[in-house]
Amino acid sequence: MLTRVRACLSAERADAIIVPSNDPHFGEYVQKHFCIRALLSGFDGSAGTLVITLSEAALWTDSRYFIQAEAQLKGTDINLMKMGVEGVPDIVSWLNARIDDKGMILLDGALFSAAEYASYRKNLNARVVGIADPFDKILPEREPLRFGPVILQKESYSGLSVISKREMVFSGDPADLHICRILTRCDDIMWLCNIRGSDIDYNPVALSYALLFRDKILLFACKEAFEKAALEYLESQQVEILPYASFYEVCGEMASDDSIHFLSPSSSTSMRLESIFAGAKHFGYEVRAEGEVAYRKSIKNPIELEGFRKANLLDGIAWCRILKYIEDNIASGTLNEYSIARQLIEYRRESRDYRGESFEPIVAFNANAASAHYSATSDEEAAVVTARGFLLIDTGAQYPYGTTDTTRTIPLSELTTIQIADYTAVLKGMIELSMASFVKGTTGYQLDILARQPLISRGRLFFHGTGHGIGHYLCVHEGPQNIRMDRDSGVALLPGMVQSNEPAIYIEGEYGIRTENVLEVVPFTENEFGAFYRFETLTLVPIATSCIDRKQLGDECAEWLNNYHHRVYEKIAPHLKDEEAIWLKNKCRPI
Amino acid sequence: MLTRVRACLSAERADAIIVPSNDPHFGEYVQKHFCIRALLSGFDGSAGTLVITLSEAALWTDSRYFIQAEAQLKGTDINLMKMGVEGVPDIVSWLNARIDDKGMILLDGALFSAAEYASYRKNLNARVVGIADPFDKILPEREPLRFGPVILQKESYSGLSVISKREMVFSGDPADLHICRILTRCDDIMWLCNIRGSDIDYNPVALSYALLFRDKILLFACKEAFEKAALEYLESQQVEILPYASFYEVCGEMASDDSIHFLSPSSSTSMRLESIFAGAKHFGYEVRAEGEVAYRKSIKNPIELEGFRKANLLDGIAWCRILKYIEDNIASGTLNEYSIARQLIEYRRESRDYRGESFEPIVAFNANAASAHYSATSDEEAAVVTARGFLLIDTGAQYPYGTTDTTRTIPLSELTTIQIADYTAVLKGMIELSMASFVKGTTGYQLDILARQPLISRGRLFFHGTGHGIGHYLCVHEGPQNIRMDRDSGVALLPGMVQSNEPAIYIEGEYGIRTENVLEVVPFTENEFGAFYRFETLTLVPIATSCIDRKQLGDECAEWLNNYHHRVYEKIAPHLKDEEAIWLKNKCRPI
Repeated sequence: MLTRVRACLSAERADAIIVPSNDPHFGEYVQKHFCIRALLSGFDGSAGTLVITLSEAALWTDSRYFIQAEAQLKGTDINLMKMGVEGVPDIVSWLNARIDDKGMILLDGALFSAAEYASYRKNLNARVVGIADPFDKILPEREPLRFGPVILQKESYSGLSVISKREMVFSGDPADLHICRILTRCDDIMWLCNIRGSDIDYNPVALSYALLFRDKILLFACKEAFEKAALEYLESQQVEILPYASFYEVCGEMASDDSIHFLSPSSSTSMRLESIFAGAKHFGYEVRAEGEVAYRKSIKNPIELEGFRKANLLDGIAWCRILKYIEDNIASGTLNEYSIARQLIEYRRESRDYRGESFEPIVAFNANAASAHYSATSDEEAAVVTARGFLLIDTGAQYPYGTTDTTRTIPLSELTTIQIADYTAVLKGMIELSMASFVKGTTGYQLDILARQPLISRGRLFFHGTGHGIGHYLCVHEGPQNIRMDRDSGVALLPGMVQSNEPAIYIEGEYGIRTENVLEVVPFTENEFGAFYRFETLTLVPIATSCIDRKQLGDECAEWLNNYHHRVYEKIAPHLKDEEAIWLKNKCRPI
Repeated sequence: MLTRVRACLSAERADAIIVPSNDPHFGEYVQKHFCIRALLSGFDGSAGTLVITLSEAALWTDSRYFIQAEAQLKGTDINLMKMGVEGVPDIVSWLNARIDDKGMILLDGALFSAAEYASYRKNLNARVVGIADPFDKILPEREPLRFGPVILQKESYSGLSVISKREMVFSGDPADLHICRILTRCDDIMWLCNIRGSDIDYNPVALSYALLFRDKILLFACKEAFEKAALEYLESQQVEILPYASFYEVCGEMASDDSIHFLSPSSSTSMRLESIFAGAKHFGYEVRAEGEVAYRKSIKNPIELEGFRKANLLDGIAWCRILKYIEDNIASGTLNEYSIARQLIEYRRESRDYRGESFEPIVAFNANAASAHYSATSDEEAAVVTARGFLLIDTGAQYPYGTTDTTRTIPLSELTTIQIADYTAVLKGMIELSMASFVKGTTGYQLDILARQPLISRGRLFFHGTGHGIGHYLCVHEGPQNIRMDRDSGVALLPGMVQSNEPAIYIEGEYGIRTENVLEVVPFTENEFGAFYRFETLTLVPIATSCIDRKQLGDECAEWLNNYHHRVYEKIAPHLKDEEAIWLKNKCRPI
């Protein structure tokens, strides 16, 4: 295949091509069709960039994937470039050492943000040329684009009509401006159009683009894949469906209309899109980096919030069953990580409304849990789970009325004092953030320390974010708000926003502990000092109390935990069998 | 006087002049000589801008000064412009409504930062012209510049020679670059040159500028004011003293030297300086907005830190005496806010090393404490202090080995449940921040919520920063680091930095509560997760425990408070008379 790519390069008089991992929608998961880097290199981890020159090829990936990439690149001529390892050049230096300013480097302009492209253009010696996807012709083994069924997301779930969402999105703009918003993120489009698709794993989205006007929406998608109810609804809401493949062409035509002010989110505007609109009379970036649609989508309406509650109730029931199942079977030696994940799915399936997992389930025993995103995908590779140490379970589900995401760490036995203190510190961090109140304008960056303080005071730290936004029957990771220590999103937490709260401790080679609830921002009080908000917990899954250091946890956190467990029992028990309810009562005992 | 200013405007063919409050050193306090706005308008509050046109004059000030400005402007033709009040135009709109693009507006280029000037130039219709100080000629009543004694700050206090400080400041720069750093902030220069002056109230600085080279320092100051020891020392440290008034001229000459790379802090580069260096071949801003010298100054060395401890010990002794004095005399009806401030100074004077207050003392009874910076300046205007409500005292002192800043709120009697809860919340916030630990790279912006959380959970908020850096026998407010919620300084807290911790509650018309200690950043631990820091408290003044809600305070904070009081007693008691020590023992009883 590399030979064919090189022939293509020669035909174009180019010297190299850069092949990234993402698709033109800049989402977290990518359909096989777009996994060109994996197809060409054999390395199918989620992150990696392949660079092919006329005589060489190299693949850059990060430390999570060093072992996997090494194995999968074996026997190829592709050099593995371990990012972050001393002495390993980055893509720019590597290319500059090989291709001078007379050379030409290609990339698919739809797969690079305008900012990434500008950075390459500035730093690479060679000329960088953006082209349209060149692989259809030369890679017949490429998976075709697949368009699965698209269904209506009823207003009884979504809470608002497409027309009212459209009005909301434009409500802050000057009324006399003829604005067109360019949308490339599939989840933004699903939310806006009250539809859901099935084109991407875990994310119920349809591959699509949209142009959003004050009085209509042009939706670029595969019309044949839409159910009738969706088609009828969209027509009633002034949504016109055009072919998915015609998006760039229509943009090109639109761009010459001098009356239109085009707006695009800076975080998801590709080099290809920007070059199309470079000729437009009025083109600019949205004030918010992720765009007005993503921002409005992040503030859930009362119907959506009610749905999240229902989703967490259903998921709480399944979680109680799996926790009891593990407890009942741990001694038998028959449990493994993969079988537990499967069994949880079985319990979830008992609800008709279950629509699938919201991400690849993580069930990780002891040392396996020390990598934050470990996931066993078969019985063979899964560790047998025995009654020793910690078992970490992080999974979520999709329901038409909401998406869930919960992590529990189950203490088994033979725990050390340090393990007990670590478990307590993680729980205390989770609770401290849950109890937080804050004034209007506060961002997650300012609250993050509350979750980390109990860990930091033990000289521990975790290197992922404390919280991410969560979609409504959409992506489990959703922006624009977050709770992080490494960078400020600049997006204040507002009532209606829903995000995770998941502090953790990872001890390499030994164990990982993470406890995750999902929080809704709610109003707290308003007075002469300002408007204040606080969190309300949506998750309804018991938290293991058997290995808490009560003194370390403190009175306030213990009181919070007891109240939480009281609520979990009240809400979940009525839906359980008698013996399950008795089990839950015991788990929810005050400490 | 306005007539003379207008004659000057006419002579220059100008239409208006903008007169600000600051001096060309951009410090917090200003010598009378530079108080032109106060001289011309009669309004002598610390913040205000006067604009004079050929036919009108107006003064902009903020809500703290509305009443005072109204009174002081009475009988003049100057209009009071209340900033932030609806319908009141800002300076730009007011000027644009009066002077069109053919007009000319003057300002003293040394008193406006380059950024402020650029903003005026962009937004004002008229041409904006920077001029040199025009007032010496037309205002004979202006106070002359005063240069008080300049003394050596011995290395036994400062901890480092000027030569080693110079090396430190340049240690991060490329060795082959011929760099000149431009310094206009007097405290930076005092620190760098190991000298102290007496030209500004509360800040022991000499009016000065400096040009800092790798191998020498050109110090622009009044040489006649230097004591002999200082002159000898400076000569030994390759510091050459040039006349204060020759600074801009020498800069102009230097600027034509193409071999020099000039660096200036963006936060203190005036329009006048920037225009002088606009012609230089190499001129740029320092990477850090406040400059490398301010940054190095903020990280105190071990000798300076030892000095801070000694300063806080001495000040703690004086504080114990004033607290006991108030307790002993409160019933007599003879105490007022001003007399208490005076008495504290008397107690401080018992140490030979006392060099004066570090800021105007704040002693504020009940409602008076609800304005954060209230200060009575005579017995007549001071409130009589009786045994009811709260008495807030915020004062600090200068010692050659350090500067102090402490606030205590004394609960008297007849306190309500709400007052007790407010007092406890403020104290809890102060303690939560004192107990914080954090990872390398953390800024005060990320920690601020720890101090505010107990207040916010009661729907309370204070609108000043939680903490400011503190100079070493220099300005009590010092950058570049701080602990604030409204903006991120971007400066990480590092071991050796010294800053205040002063959460508060202000209830208008009723009372103000503030508790302030000073914290040093110290190393905590370093391991595979990173380098961690924590705070150590420098202040040694007992905190009233009589109105603490013990349950609300929590076990952890109570334990911290008991340990703190144990240390206060151990350190201070040996220096007290017997009856004072008994009194202190009682105040330091565990709760």
